Amino acid sequence: MKNPTAYPLKEVVTRFGGRIEGDAATLVNQVATLENATAGQIAFLTNSKYRKQLETTHASAVIVAESDIDATHLPRIVCTNPYSYFAKLSAFLNPLPEVKARIHPSAVIGADAKVSPTAQIDEFVSIGEGAIIGSGSVIMAGCSIGANTSVGDNTRLYPRVVVYHNCVVGNNVILHSGVVIGADGFGIAMDEGAWLKIPQIGRAIIGNNVEIGANTTIDRGALDDTVIEDGVKLDNLIQIAHNVHIGAHTAIAGCAGIAGSTTVGRYCRIGGSAGIVGHVNIADGVEISPFTMVSKSIREKGTYSGMNPFSEKEKWMKNMAHMRHLDEMASRIKNLEKELEALIRRG
Amino acid sequence: MKNPTAYPLKEVVTRFGGRIEGDAATLVNQVATLENATAGQIAFLTNSKYRKQLETTHASAVIVAESDIDATHLPRIVCTNPYSYFAKLSAFLNPLPEVKARIHPSAVIGADAKVSPTAQIDEFVSIGEGAIIGSGSVIMAGCSIGANTSVGDNTRLYPRVVVYHNCVVGNNVILHSGVVIGADGFGIAMDEGAWLKIPQIGRAIIGNNVEIGANTTIDRGALDDTVIEDGVKLDNLIQIAHNVHIGAHTAIAGCAGIAGSTTVGRYCRIGGSAGIVGHVNIADGVEISPFTMVSKSIREKGTYSGMNPFSEKEKWMKNMAHMRHLDEMASRIKNLEKELEALIRRG
Amino acid sequence: MKNPTAYPLKEVVTRFGGRIEGDAATLVNQVATLENATAGQIAFLTNSKYRKQLETTHASAVIVAESDIDATHLPRIVCTNPYSYFAKLSAFLNPLPEVKARIHPSAVIGADAKVSPTAQIDEFVSIGEGAIIGSGSVIMAGCSIGANTSVGDNTRLYPRVVVYHNCVVGNNVILHSGVVIGADGFGIAMDEGAWLKIPQIGRAIIGNNVEIGANTTIDRGALDDTVIEDGVKLDNLIQIAHNVHIGAHTAIAGCAGIAGSTTVGRYCRIGGSAGIVGHVNIADGVEISPFTMVSKSIREKGTYSGMNPFSEKEKWMKNMAHMRHLDEMASRIKNLEKELEALIRRG
Repeated sequence: MKNPTAYPLKEVVTRFGGRIEGDAATLVNQVATLENATAGQIAFLTNSKYRKQLETTHASAVIVAESDIDATHLPRIVCTNPYSYFAKLSAFLNPLPEVKARIHPSAVIGADAKVSPTAQIDEFVSIGEGAIIGSGSVIMAGCSIGANTSVGDNTRLYPRVVVYHNCVVGNNVILHSGVVIGADGFGIAMDEGAWLKIPQIGRAIIGNNVEIGANTTIDRGALDDTVIEDGVKLDNLIQIAHNVHIGAHTAIAGCAGIAGSTTVGRYCRIGGSAGIVGHVNIADGVEISPFTMVSKSIREKGTYSGMNPFSEKEKWMKNMAHMRHLDEMASRIKNLEKELEALIRRG
Repeated sequence: MKNPTAYPLKEVVTRFGGRIEGDAATLVNQVATLENATAGQIAFLTNSKYRKQLETTHASAVIVAESDIDATHLPRIVCTNPYSYFAKLSAFLNPLPEVKARIHPSAVIGADAKVSPTAQIDEFVSIGEGAIIGSGSVIMAGCSIGANTSVGDNTRLYPRVVVYHNCVVGNNVILHSGVVIGADGFGIAMDEGAWLKIPQIGRAIIGNNVEIGANTTIDRGALDDTVIEDGVKLDNLIQIAHNVHIGAHTAIAGCAGIAGSTTVGRYCRIGGSAGIVGHVNIADGVEISPFTMVSKSIREKGTYSGMNPFSEKEKWMKNMAHMRHLDEMASRIKNLEKELEALIRRG
Repeated sequence: MKNPTAYPLKEVVTRFGGRIEGDAATLVNQVATLENATAGQIAFLTNSKYRKQLETTHASAVIVAESDIDATHLPRIVCTNPYSYFAKLSAFLNPLPEVKARIHPSAVIGADAKVSPTAQIDEFVSIGEGAIIGSGSVIMAGCSIGANTSVGDNTRLYPRVVVYHNCVVGNNVILHSGVVIGADGFGIAMDEGAWLKIPQIGRAIIGNNVEIGANTTIDRGALDDTVIEDGVKLDNLIQIAHNVHIGAHTAIAGCAGIAGSTTVGRYCRIGGSAGIVGHVNIADGVEISPFTMVSKSIREKGTYSGMNPFSEKEKWMKNMAHMRHLDEMASRIKNLEKELEALIRRG
């Protein structure tokens, strides 16, 4: 995608800071990777592993850190955090489609719902009774907003998002297609040979500046609320169970699952396909490796893993056969140590 | 959420049984946790771990078991199963929105479809040719019901559920948003360097009193049917492959996956993110830990696990490095035992 | 499902090859399993494990390989690959509903969109500005096709599929309900204590003859494209992250996740709930066991596993307690070997 307007580097640094080495009049109209950039595009170097690509890139300019300033002769913007600089510049060069203030005639708006006159409500959208849609928000085709749910300002729901009744979605939130917020949590009680449903009467509360990936589900609370704090970023196909509380600025990768009533701290990073059992607490700043099952609380900041290695299947199976005998192996080692010690002592 | 009506405890026990200790005229209008209850609410004690909260709760009354009768001076309902008692009382205090018998004018109803006059069909719903919707059922916005599919009585489909053609959904079923029932199973045959699709001509059959969580998928059978028996409870983001058979009253937690043609017994409990390979049988009453991969049949009732522990990543990686050498470790222990025995024998 | 027309075996072999043993006039109207076939149906034997079922089957005919030719006296079609033969015959006996060329009046078609006059656009479908829908394609109820996205010929989108803007979907593709193509990848940069979004300006490109299961998500690229090559088959609830490249004819089972920028070769088979970390390369023809986490590149064709066994929970936990001490166990074995050697040497 080529941006219709090109900007000289000097205008870029006026907007976003940093300083220029080389020709400040160099025009750029799009961001790109070093490898695939074409003329008129600006690339970036965030990992010295890719320094070699500077020699062959067709980019017209590059964003680099102070430490990489001599790695190229291309016109370059020097800044402290090239990756976030690139993020800001890319957002500037690739603005979202303009919000069209309107309610599509096919949309169904419930009684007493309050839709801001600057919001965009697309076709086949349902807005429940008493729901609120804030200014500048975009509710794309086929979304369903439950009764008395409130959606903040400048929030964007891609097509086919469902938010159940009585929930809260903050400002500047992005919900991707297929996201389901506020479905009933998995609450059941065994009663005379059958499961009774526990009504789920809490809410799901989504803070400001949260982004949630496609087909991720966040259940409403059973009695109290499920809470996703400000700045949390969730990837696709994640399950957040009822009464979970995720602290601000925590990021969770795809296919992870967090069971009921668990509290995750602020600034945590949780890897793909990881899981956390219910009713535990994870401290601030904890990093969890992908494919790790967290089965108890983590009280200290740090990186934790429970991930298996892998190898050729035949070798793996041969090694794994011993997993069911580790306890016996440990006893045999202990036994050997004792016997050997006795033997040595006897001399 | 405050219920508009408050009920005296004596009316509660008239409806749901149990006996009252303390003032039978105490009014309650909502259920709550011990920790967050406010005046007018009734809490419950199911786990003696929370007994201490009885001292500080603001609840007006509490549901307790006989064994906890002296744990508080608050007005209390004494019963044998406080958790199921609470479930029933909560359902009474928090009724679902009334069913509005109607077909929204935007809904598209196929030829020869039979929609009960007491069913509620909301906006943007598609009902295929020859489909049946039972009495008192609610099909919320944007659901799609395939041709010749039958949905029973008093069943509720939340917005954006899809049930493909020729499937059967029972009575008193709840399907949450994003659920897909009856999509094609993953049936492919390799033929001259490319995959051929195996047409999936079986059905998906969902029994009575089943609840299925958001974005869970249940594929139709390849030739025979996929069957979910009565009273099964499925959490969010679960994958049930073609020709799986789940026995009555089994409960499965989020992100679990069950591969094709596997049979799961009655009253099983399967943990979050667990998996079961295809073509195996799991006995009645089996409990599977979260994050466990079941790679063969389980013939005896019991609890099974294959879950890894976890620890600080650095330590974990150091330990895991030996996983690929367990077989060698076992041989070395055996060898040591032999040599030591020989040494001892030699005296 | 009974097919309205029955075909004699001689017509079947005329269409699909193979030779007949027994009565060539035998009529068949549907395919079935050996176990559940009824009169008029044709079953197949692909696994000698099921040979015993030939004695009791009610099928009117059977498809067998040369090696099983004497396993039954039933009329039979003998061919080299009974499973793919069955697939072709089943597709013939179970054709998809005929495509009805039309645009449902409720559909919303954007300016400059080009919808083939032979395509079927069902109710509540949104087609974005400048989008293209090829000939003979079916876009079922409630699908949303983003601006400037192109969908090829003879492609079928089941209800509630979302394809974002600027994406490409090939010919003869099947997308099941709840699939989301082209949502933003999980690209974030930490900047002064908060995550900045990296705009995702690449595309998602889906080749020809691809089938994608219910609720699977394929993110668009960050800068370059996410690519799913021809003939790839994806099961349900799979996550394909941004900039992943999947080689032709690779098949991936349900609940698997592939992290960003990873390349998977051609003709790979990836098991259910498996995961591959980001930025690695998997060679052609690699098979990955279910529940295996691939944490580094695989350069050689072969089968790889990292799957745990499982056992009764109590025994498992006892054995697993030693997982955190494998390094220590290895040291103790080494130590025993040294001491024993010293002892032996001393004589």
